[in-house]
Amino acid sequence: MKVKKLKYSVGTWQYGPLGDRFVPGGYQEAAAFPALLDHIAAIEGVTGVELVYPGEVADDNHAFIVEELQKRKLEAAHLCVDLYAHKKWRFGSITADREETRREAVQTILLAAEAARRIGCRSLNLWFGQDGHDYLFQRHYLSSWKRLVDTLQHLATEIPDLRLCLEYKLKEPRTHSLVPNTHAALLAVEEAGAPNLGVTLDVGHAMAAGENMAEAASLLMAKGRLFHLHLNDNYRYWDDDMAVGSVHTLEFLELLYWLNRCGYEGWFSLDVYPFREDPARVTRYSIDMLNTLQAAAVTLQEAGMEELITQEKALEALELARKTLFKS
Amino acid sequence: MKVKKLKYSVGTWQYGPLGDRFVPGGYQEAAAFPALLDHIAAIEGVTGVELVYPGEVADDNHAFIVEELQKRKLEAAHLCVDLYAHKKWRFGSITADREETRREAVQTILLAAEAARRIGCRSLNLWFGQDGHDYLFQRHYLSSWKRLVDTLQHLATEIPDLRLCLEYKLKEPRTHSLVPNTHAALLAVEEAGAPNLGVTLDVGHAMAAGENMAEAASLLMAKGRLFHLHLNDNYRYWDDDMAVGSVHTLEFLELLYWLNRCGYEGWFSLDVYPFREDPARVTRYSIDMLNTLQAAAVTLQEAGMEELITQEKALEALELARKTLFKS
Amino acid sequence: MKVKKLKYSVGTWQYGPLGDRFVPGGYQEAAAFPALLDHIAAIEGVTGVELVYPGEVADDNHAFIVEELQKRKLEAAHLCVDLYAHKKWRFGSITADREETRREAVQTILLAAEAARRIGCRSLNLWFGQDGHDYLFQRHYLSSWKRLVDTLQHLATEIPDLRLCLEYKLKEPRTHSLVPNTHAALLAVEEAGAPNLGVTLDVGHAMAAGENMAEAASLLMAKGRLFHLHLNDNYRYWDDDMAVGSVHTLEFLELLYWLNRCGYEGWFSLDVYPFREDPARVTRYSIDMLNTLQAAAVTLQEAGMEELITQEKALEALELARKTLFKS
Amino acid sequence: MKVKKLKYSVGTWQYGPLGDRFVPGGYQEAAAFPALLDHIAAIEGVTGVELVYPGEVADDNHAFIVEELQKRKLEAAHLCVDLYAHKKWRFGSITADREETRREAVQTILLAAEAARRIGCRSLNLWFGQDGHDYLFQRHYLSSWKRLVDTLQHLATEIPDLRLCLEYKLKEPRTHSLVPNTHAALLAVEEAGAPNLGVTLDVGHAMAAGENMAEAASLLMAKGRLFHLHLNDNYRYWDDDMAVGSVHTLEFLELLYWLNRCGYEGWFSLDVYPFREDPARVTRYSIDMLNTLQAAAVTLQEAGMEELITQEKALEALELARKTLFKS
Repeated sequence: MKVKKLKYSVGTWQYGPLGDRFVPGGYQEAAAFPALLDHIAAIEGVTGVELVYPGEVADDNHAFIVEELQKRKLEAAHLCVDLYAHKKWRFGSITADREETRREAVQTILLAAEAARRIGCRSLNLWFGQDGHDYLFQRHYLSSWKRLVDTLQHLATEIPDLRLCLEYKLKEPRTHSLVPNTHAALLAVEEAGAPNLGVTLDVGHAMAAGENMAEAASLLMAKGRLFHLHLNDNYRYWDDDMAVGSVHTLEFLELLYWLNRCGYEGWFSLDVYPFREDPARVTRYSIDMLNTLQAAAVTLQEAGMEELITQEKALEALELARKTLFKS
Repeated sequence: MKVKKLKYSVGTWQYGPLGDRFVPGGYQEAAAFPALLDHIAAIEGVTGVELVYPGEVADDNHAFIVEELQKRKLEAAHLCVDLYAHKKWRFGSITADREETRREAVQTILLAAEAARRIGCRSLNLWFGQDGHDYLFQRHYLSSWKRLVDTLQHLATEIPDLRLCLEYKLKEPRTHSLVPNTHAALLAVEEAGAPNLGVTLDVGHAMAAGENMAEAASLLMAKGRLFHLHLNDNYRYWDDDMAVGSVHTLEFLELLYWLNRCGYEGWFSLDVYPFREDPARVTRYSIDMLNTLQAAAVTLQEAGMEELITQEKALEALELARKTLFKS
Repeated sequence: MKVKKLKYSVGTWQYGPLGDRFVPGGYQEAAAFPALLDHIAAIEGVTGVELVYPGEVADDNHAFIVEELQKRKLEAAHLCVDLYAHKKWRFGSITADREETRREAVQTILLAAEAARRIGCRSLNLWFGQDGHDYLFQRHYLSSWKRLVDTLQHLATEIPDLRLCLEYKLKEPRTHSLVPNTHAALLAVEEAGAPNLGVTLDVGHAMAAGENMAEAASLLMAKGRLFHLHLNDNYRYWDDDMAVGSVHTLEFLELLYWLNRCGYEGWFSLDVYPFREDPARVTRYSIDMLNTLQAAAVTLQEAGMEELITQEKALEALELARKTLFKS
Repeated sequence: MKVKKLKYSVGTWQYGPLGDRFVPGGYQEAAAFPALLDHIAAIEGVTGVELVYPGEVADDNHAFIVEELQKRKLEAAHLCVDLYAHKKWRFGSITADREETRREAVQTILLAAEAARRIGCRSLNLWFGQDGHDYLFQRHYLSSWKRLVDTLQHLATEIPDLRLCLEYKLKEPRTHSLVPNTHAALLAVEEAGAPNLGVTLDVGHAMAAGENMAEAASLLMAKGRLFHLHLNDNYRYWDDDMAVGSVHTLEFLELLYWLNRCGYEGWFSLDVYPFREDPARVTRYSIDMLNTLQAAAVTLQEAGMEELITQEKALEALELARKTLFKS
């Protein structure tokens, strides 16, 4: 079996100022757009870029974007609709209590879809990060979920030509998100029912939600709903957005095993926040680690891992993984 | 508005030896069945009991059970099918890799259904506590979920006259359960699709899964799938099964508010493990606290809580709760 | 027993822009200094303010600060030394690997001490929020702790007239802080050994570290090291800095019980981040709730709580708390 | 630099019935004592055994124990004093409210010390697992800590010839343990002050307490207080006691790096609970993984890791670790 090379893309925000609530101005010198594309294009193995609407891709700069990408031989892998990075969304976007906020959110997504088409991008990322609640007695739980599903359905009809990717997260920036985990995302997408609705699996969000990321990916793939992957690492308590494989090893190996097993064909998009580190090194480490793990994952498949899995032989399976991955 | 009295039942296991892995023999002198029913019948306000098949209700003791309950004017509120308390289920029950284990699990549920009918109980609790995984590379994630949904569908057809209640839990006894949270339970039940499939919401499981229990209940009620409630308390990190309201206060108030708001008509079943405390006191405290909170919850509804909730007025809502619930 | 009135102060940052990594510009219109003091002075029951050096209190504006506080009858309760809100501290302050960073950090604290004296403030807050690590293999664990203790000792000698308050936190902004919990703070302070070294207990940090806040406070008081209190609330997974008593009730009651029991005489300083809410309402709610709980805590003491605690009567103790605190 | 071979021992409880609260009878056929010593002796690389007083080593079977160990060329690495596996300890042992319980606990430890001497074992494990609290208002926090420190001091004087190893744990079987983390254990030991008092670092307890285990070990070694190591793995939320290196990889590598760096000379004692797996395979996997990691850890030291650590070069350090540990 030949090792399938992974298709890498990088989110542009990795080159931003990267602040937090204590250092809002950021820990880094931000690279401006489109200059930051030079950094991304310079990373060996990266062929795609994940962009943001309307901050980077706007309603009126499509030709410019296309040209800047082509110059650097980068594909527009995925377009993130920004419905979270402005205080107007502070009580939510498509499920907000104010009707005008909900309308503006939908309108933003429709415009993002148009922008995506113009730059040749086939998928939109929908992360409703501000939809949820902080305080008890703050949310009308009956309305929120219904608004989510109805809006997804509406969007799927209005944007039939693009893949709409719902991204879940347990919390942050709210203490409780409306779509906290894999099953919630899948439930929303299945209820809405359209074939162009799917899920962005952010593996850091999976870990912070107490999930096994291979299980999350497999469940989504079984339903044909794993549309996109965001890769990063963390310590399981928070969305630390660290270099891939800087904390977890065997769990990423298991993830790759199941992605191969189920024939995932999409992007491996790096979504890391190198607050205090060199972004180039963080990306390089992530890709090198993923390539190392991918080679081992392919070997596992050839070596009969599936049989061990289905025969209650967990320790034999781990032993095979150990021998395959590590220098003795 | 009149305060609706809550319908309480108690799980018999509360009177067991209550051990853990360090003290497997238990911290308590267990009360034998049916003597423990005397304890339950003695608690003012309790009218139901939650029983276990086949440990208590067996295939051949229906008349005995009915008589013992009638003697004490207790209803058989709910029957728990035990698919977890024996090592034969250690790698799962209805989703185990061994076909004979899966078959035995289904057979056990069908027999439990028959037993339930005979004792006049209309709902079965299905907690597949051993279905899941501990180790990486231990589970064929594609098979497990499919087996779960297919089996639920099969059971709903075979047992059309009873309510089948799927109970979810994040972990324990496995490190990862197959059905970890509200959305997962709802997804399974909606996929299986039958009207007699619903969910048992164990509020301690909700908290340990990082959920807001009022949101979990509301989501289930919106779909007509909240069939049963298990009540206990914990510190959010583990299923401590403590006295209700011994840790959380406002969250239980919010839960009751939404249960009233959505017209929940089912049991409030106490599922506590008084490892080191007097079971009678633990039950008494739980019920007294719930009654106190229920009176306040009803007042909140009259006092216009819903309007505050839908108008982004979280602090006004909390202020109303504070004034309603506390002295001075 | 008379209810002792609590001495409240408020941190000025509550009136800042209050951003996070997604909305670095903040969710609020910030109030400028000293105008924000009007807001604080307007809150009934608040007599103190917690200020920041060098952002507010600088090396050359002491007379101005004193005048602005006196005008509004506010005491300078506590002065926070800012060693975290600039990217120069990104790899730590007093324990950083670069010697010039460590020297600058110490110098900043010495200048802050001088500023404190000039404005009539007797205690400095030392939160070394950037001292710790994110990545594995990032920290020389042997050096960090030694630098911490040595520097605390040096500072205690250089600043013998002020109370130096070490504040601990499990994480954020780093994934791992050097001083993560109560025992760590106490260990550092006891090792350094000076009588003017103590601890700021941020109860939200206690909860996010898995601690019982009453236990944390009691342990510190037993050693005479509880110098200052930061009050806020959260869901135990993160430092959400919410309104006090918006999530937890009985735990705050237990905290107040033990503070009274041990004779805590210090400030109750509100350290909340009302990202999306009205800061005035958040403060009002926090104080009203604390006053309600304080009245109940005093009653518990009179009613024999201590005896219940020492006699393994947890449920009787909770029952007493329930009857004391709640209506009906 | 030559790879130092690690000195392995195994806890006998690994061959017990291994139950939990749902299957108190256990998931395994227990091996009887001393037959289980055959299993331990058969594991290549294991030279020590960790025993329990008074369940295995009793007051009157020293000759028998010595003979059984000698027959199999096993050292008595460590003797665990059982103060947790009986309901008489349910409210604590050396810090219990009942004086007779405290006295019995101390007496048990003194007898264990005598037994240890007789079998040629030089260190006692003191895990006060039942000392702590479950409920709010259940514990007199001032008394508990004082009793702990006073008793440690007393024991150190009474047992001057043995190493007394305090083991900490965040929770389980209580919801809150008295000695929850590394800093707490170190504080207790430093307060008590005797040179024969130290700490058993259970790395699973470290992870479940949110600690970095290398940092925990380094801090203890810097004070000369790391007396013993318990090795296992988990998912960071609970003390799962899984095979070493079945979840974490790089964190164990970092731990070994620092143990080597600081010259740890003690045992690597396996403390795993193979509830559903073959105990022999779990041990084999754990040792093979540790040996693999130890070889890499030694290489890191030669390759200049320390310099990278002290120069804020986290990604270079990780890159070195990646190249050292993994194939290709």
